[in-house]
Amino acid sequence: MSSSRSTMVIAHVFRGTFVHSTQSSALDVLDDTLLGVDTLGKIAFIGRGTDVDRLCEKYGFHVRDVTQLRQHEFFMPGMVDTHIHASQYSYAGTALDLPLLQWLNTYTFPVEARYKDLEFARKVYTQVVRRTLRNGTTTASYFATIHTDASLLLGQIANEFGQRALVGKVCMDRNDAVKHYKETPEESLDETNRFIRELLENKYPLVMPVVTPRFAPSCSPALLSHLGEIAQNNHLHIQSHISETKEEVQMVKELFPDSESYTDVYLKHNLLTDKTVMAHGCHLSDEELKLFRETGASIAHCPNSNISLCSGFLDVRNVLNRKVKLGLGTDVAGGYSPSMLDAVRKTLDTSKALTIKDSEHQTLSFQEVFRLATLGGSQALSMDEHTGNFEVGKDFDALRVNLAAEEGPVDIFQREEPLVLLEKFLNLGDDRNIAEVYVAGRRVVPFPG
Amino acid sequence: MSSSRSTMVIAHVFRGTFVHSTQSSALDVLDDTLLGVDTLGKIAFIGRGTDVDRLCEKYGFHVRDVTQLRQHEFFMPGMVDTHIHASQYSYAGTALDLPLLQWLNTYTFPVEARYKDLEFARKVYTQVVRRTLRNGTTTASYFATIHTDASLLLGQIANEFGQRALVGKVCMDRNDAVKHYKETPEESLDETNRFIRELLENKYPLVMPVVTPRFAPSCSPALLSHLGEIAQNNHLHIQSHISETKEEVQMVKELFPDSESYTDVYLKHNLLTDKTVMAHGCHLSDEELKLFRETGASIAHCPNSNISLCSGFLDVRNVLNRKVKLGLGTDVAGGYSPSMLDAVRKTLDTSKALTIKDSEHQTLSFQEVFRLATLGGSQALSMDEHTGNFEVGKDFDALRVNLAAEEGPVDIFQREEPLVLLEKFLNLGDDRNIAEVYVAGRRVVPFPG
Repeated sequence: MSSSRSTMVIAHVFRGTFVHSTQSSALDVLDDTLLGVDTLGKIAFIGRGTDVDRLCEKYGFHVRDVTQLRQHEFFMPGMVDTHIHASQYSYAGTALDLPLLQWLNTYTFPVEARYKDLEFARKVYTQVVRRTLRNGTTTASYFATIHTDASLLLGQIANEFGQRALVGKVCMDRNDAVKHYKETPEESLDETNRFIRELLENKYPLVMPVVTPRFAPSCSPALLSHLGEIAQNNHLHIQSHISETKEEVQMVKELFPDSESYTDVYLKHNLLTDKTVMAHGCHLSDEELKLFRETGASIAHCPNSNISLCSGFLDVRNVLNRKVKLGLGTDVAGGYSPSMLDAVRKTLDTSKALTIKDSEHQTLSFQEVFRLATLGGSQALSMDEHTGNFEVGKDFDALRVNLAAEEGPVDIFQREEPLVLLEKFLNLGDDRNIAEVYVAGRRVVPFPG
Repeated sequence: MSSSRSTMVIAHVFRGTFVHSTQSSALDVLDDTLLGVDTLGKIAFIGRGTDVDRLCEKYGFHVRDVTQLRQHEFFMPGMVDTHIHASQYSYAGTALDLPLLQWLNTYTFPVEARYKDLEFARKVYTQVVRRTLRNGTTTASYFATIHTDASLLLGQIANEFGQRALVGKVCMDRNDAVKHYKETPEESLDETNRFIRELLENKYPLVMPVVTPRFAPSCSPALLSHLGEIAQNNHLHIQSHISETKEEVQMVKELFPDSESYTDVYLKHNLLTDKTVMAHGCHLSDEELKLFRETGASIAHCPNSNISLCSGFLDVRNVLNRKVKLGLGTDVAGGYSPSMLDAVRKTLDTSKALTIKDSEHQTLSFQEVFRLATLGGSQALSMDEHTGNFEVGKDFDALRVNLAAEEGPVDIFQREEPLVLLEKFLNLGDDRNIAEVYVAGRRVVPFPG
């Protein structure tokens, strides 16, 4: 397709139902809508289906090139996983019987130490990128391990499969539990600089480095300071963990006696910026949330992990009321599932658990959680200029959902409204219902033969 | 295959890993085991794989007839869904925004009223039986609706697909919310008698009627008494609901002022027997649990429903400590998922939620929850003489699980121990990993072409 009338060239046009979120509405259903994507992968126009002739003329495409969605199909924005440990995917679904700090020492560090081995890394990283894409994760913020070459490989694989990704080489110079699985402060800095430089030199269009101190207990104050500087000097994203468990909060208090709070530790080291995403935050005080709002830092809510490791319940309603940006994360493998649909379900579960504890708690609606999994995630990663919903000028990151997929997990008994189809998908659907995945206009699922 | 040495004729022999539970062990892993099933569908022998020659001779089969499981495969007992509303499956995955009593009036009763229409009933009941079988439910205890003919149809469909089932025509003579969706006490008795008679006349080998008062608030004391008599005179199973929400407990207190507790209401009407299974029980007192133990009545724990409708958390550990029989239920559609794997996961979630609230709470292990989904369920339905685990003389109700199923949801990176395979299956698997389902020795999944 091409246009003689404008310099914009249209690559795809879809007609059907689109559901997405906006700042003012948790769920907008766009019935019989025509959406065009240009050759750069950006949304070129959104119009009414009945305006097809006028839009054909204006944008220079033919009616026969329009892809018509079928009954029980709709498009939704791709989902944003704001926190996932790619390196832990090898043991996902196991090892969930210990609290966080013991869990790290017993299961996590020994596995992460294996990523020196690039063949092992290639195997697991290929599967995690394929699996999350199939599950509808168009954007992921990944933790890798301390190993620079394996972390670069993760970036390469995400690029090859076409996933939008932040990739973090993990930094940690404190670890007494597993020998060799830590760096000296100098190594950590040198390798972080090398990781950032080499990843940026590849000029992957959708993959960016993210500065990744594991979490305060694993990092010396000196290392934290240097990482803050690196992020600032290179205008980079930052990711870490905060206030996942009470035991960890207590540990940070002891390790950083000069800081007023866990949040203050990161703030003091210039690691709390409007490009920071912190996982968990179950036990943050309202004063700490205020620091998040003031700095523009965000929270990655990882409900599967918080339940599976018995870490705590994050009160998402309170975080939202305090105007702190919040997205959802799978937190593989503290969270056992690599699917953002599971993160949606567990976010609803956690909110309902808070309602069971206190009937005054204002339960999240599925529409609100849908927003958190899409637009909310893009805001949490400061990527909402490019992705998160269907707006002209944004990249087309989208899932073509088919509730009536053959051999799929959902039964449909009659023609249903889009709202019903969406709710059934969020509660009961899986990758079999995700017929196609687009990232920046490129169809990345089904995988190219 | 046949035997000249005994009257027992062997129909199948499998060799590989079997995992199951016993009274004394939540999880037994039987490595390289040979299991034979006779032509009546019963387990004829269980032996060591290395004893194959001796077993061939003893039971009269040939080595070439042994089905060898592959790597990443194992057999486990079929799962037992102790509480599922077949009639509510049409709206599973939606309508989860109201507490129980409003939810019943707003969503449930209007849908259940539609089962006068046998074509609608056939469509939904066919799908729910197919779906639950595919998901590994070899035994289900179903609620239908007040309609006798549709309830008989559910029994017929379960029989045709080969599922072991209790089927209950729902009884209720109190309902002010949805006109016409209730019976007179006489209708309820006459139709219950007709339902039992006609279902038994069909002589389905695996499908039995269950006396099913909806729950105390929907039934007059007179109806409850008569249903208690019917159950007693016919030695039938009984199912109902109890103490799902606090509001309902309060309502029962008002409706039955002469009873000491909700449990006492059922006890007084002879509805608490060793063939009774009561759903939920979130708010039962320890005194009430004592009545359960004394009568041999059991609890169907339905964690998805209890979370989804914000009903409460059942403390399963306390129930088990008090020696009350307990199985798991999906409770479609208060629970949104028709999969017992979801019930397993949500049971773990609920137990972990209780640990988050109180760190002294002794969290259930996945092995214990596996037992509840299999042997525990068969005990809760008083069917453990026939099913629930792999013992010689029991029916062969089993799932052939393949963790490495092509296009499946689980990634495997290396040869794994059976324990790891089982935990990954319980946390991450779905119907794609269930290669075959057997009920009483008959292969019912894949469905016959």
